[in-house]
Amino acid sequence: MRKSEYQFSVTWGDTDAAGIVFYPTFYKWMDTATHHLFSSIGYPTSELFTIKKIGLPLIKTTCDFKQPLFFEDKLTIHSEMKEIHNKVFLVEHTFQKDDNIVAIGTELRAWGDLSGEKPKAVAIPNEVRQLLEHE
Amino acid sequence: MRKSEYQFSVTWGDTDAAGIVFYPTFYKWMDTATHHLFSSIGYPTSELFTIKKIGLPLIKTTCDFKQPLFFEDKLTIHSEMKEIHNKVFLVEHTFQKDDNIVAIGTELRAWGDLSGEKPKAVAIPNEVRQLLEHE
Amino acid sequence: MRKSEYQFSVTWGDTDAAGIVFYPTFYKWMDTATHHLFSSIGYPTSELFTIKKIGLPLIKTTCDFKQPLFFEDKLTIHSEMKEIHNKVFLVEHTFQKDDNIVAIGTELRAWGDLSGEKPKAVAIPNEVRQLLEHE
Amino acid sequence: MRKSEYQFSVTWGDTDAAGIVFYPTFYKWMDTATHHLFSSIGYPTSELFTIKKIGLPLIKTTCDFKQPLFFEDKLTIHSEMKEIHNKVFLVEHTFQKDDNIVAIGTELRAWGDLSGEKPKAVAIPNEVRQLLEHE
Repeated sequence: MRKSEYQFSVTWGDTDAAGIVFYPTFYKWMDTATHHLFSSIGYPTSELFTIKKIGLPLIKTTCDFKQPLFFEDKLTIHSEMKEIHNKVFLVEHTFQKDDNIVAIGTELRAWGDLSGEKPKAVAIPNEVRQLLEHE
Repeated sequence: MRKSEYQFSVTWGDTDAAGIVFYPTFYKWMDTATHHLFSSIGYPTSELFTIKKIGLPLIKTTCDFKQPLFFEDKLTIHSEMKEIHNKVFLVEHTFQKDDNIVAIGTELRAWGDLSGEKPKAVAIPNEVRQLLEHE
Repeated sequence: MRKSEYQFSVTWGDTDAAGIVFYPTFYKWMDTATHHLFSSIGYPTSELFTIKKIGLPLIKTTCDFKQPLFFEDKLTIHSEMKEIHNKVFLVEHTFQKDDNIVAIGTELRAWGDLSGEKPKAVAIPNEVRQLLEHE
Repeated sequence: MRKSEYQFSVTWGDTDAAGIVFYPTFYKWMDTATHHLFSSIGYPTSELFTIKKIGLPLIKTTCDFKQPLFFEDKLTIHSEMKEIHNKVFLVEHTFQKDDNIVAIGTELRAWGDLSGEKPKAVAIPNEVRQLLEHE
């Protein structure tokens, strides 16, 4: 299924007083990596949101932390679609630094109609599903 | 086992362009709630860190999101120790808004010696363990 | 003119690898303090925003940093309206820790109509102006 | 004097409920741009910090906001050394989106010895000063 890569460096503001990255920051990066994956299939979430009032609200997220990260570390997130259901999908994000896997996270998200007061899960359109299922 | 409560309000900066709270923010709140729990047993993490070079590095975290949160929503996090092992412990955080549970998260953390280059899990001291096990 | 106070503690995530607060965090606190000031006069910005499509966009902000802040420091921000013009106003925020002033910041903001594509400064309503001018 | 450029895109988490970038985020970007400038002269702040216990603590920062920024906007920060004194220096950051200047900020920073309990301004080394003064 669909894969994408997102590269970035740890900034000073990502760190905490222990000198390592404050853990919620890993989730910020996962969020950005998922938006990046949708841009890579021609569906930038900025347009989904402003034109179609579609968002990708979270149902469940997880992260396993294997190694601490430090200021100016260079990272690659390998994102991969793992499951695509009718209204929801699961993305797995593998954080790599040099040859080491430093963290693995998952995001279970809905295809969310944001036109009402609260986000509402709706069916993933077929053209999007096909792009996400494609290798 | 040990429980504590932490109350707060959603700030403007916690929200995103969909008008709801950006999900990594839930993890920031969980982190603060855990620090709060340790303060409540007389072990503020600020002192653990500066005096004893002890931190609480993350091994795994999860969060189930049940309802979106909005600017100025008032929340209570009910934190509860669920498991205490030799070097690691699991805290469960239940986010409550009025009578509704809006999210449930977990943090699996180590008792971490930060005096070396990288955090290293060490045995939780008995006096801390007893306080964490106490109702 | 109108004054308000906002109290808070430095969280772990506010700090950086130097062990002190990452400076953009001071501006987050100022933003929250300004929202707090409007709540104190009966105009919570959550209602201004959702009901009247009014926001308080920034024109210019400044901050003088006098002392570093550390994890779990307890702070009070003393916010005071300093200037109220037709469409814009200036708030000064003084950060106090114990008896010391640790930072002084300012925010020049507009009364902003957010109903269009971009925020547009409009005249501050008289009833709001009177409440802001009141001691 | 020394100039550098830093390019980035607005992420989803940078936005707030008004759909525009939350203003403290501009300061995060300025901070990253300054670290980038020091990397560009061969003095990455990660090494200054870990090897020499040198940081760049803030004395005063300002920002003029001219246009709101939106999710996925592409930006360039043009950073330029404007003043170099014995212990302090002033960097000006101009935020450009397409051909428009969307914000201009300044950071007055010290060359800070972090080996003690609190940061202490010390003289900027000559080899650094020369690199910063160079066009």
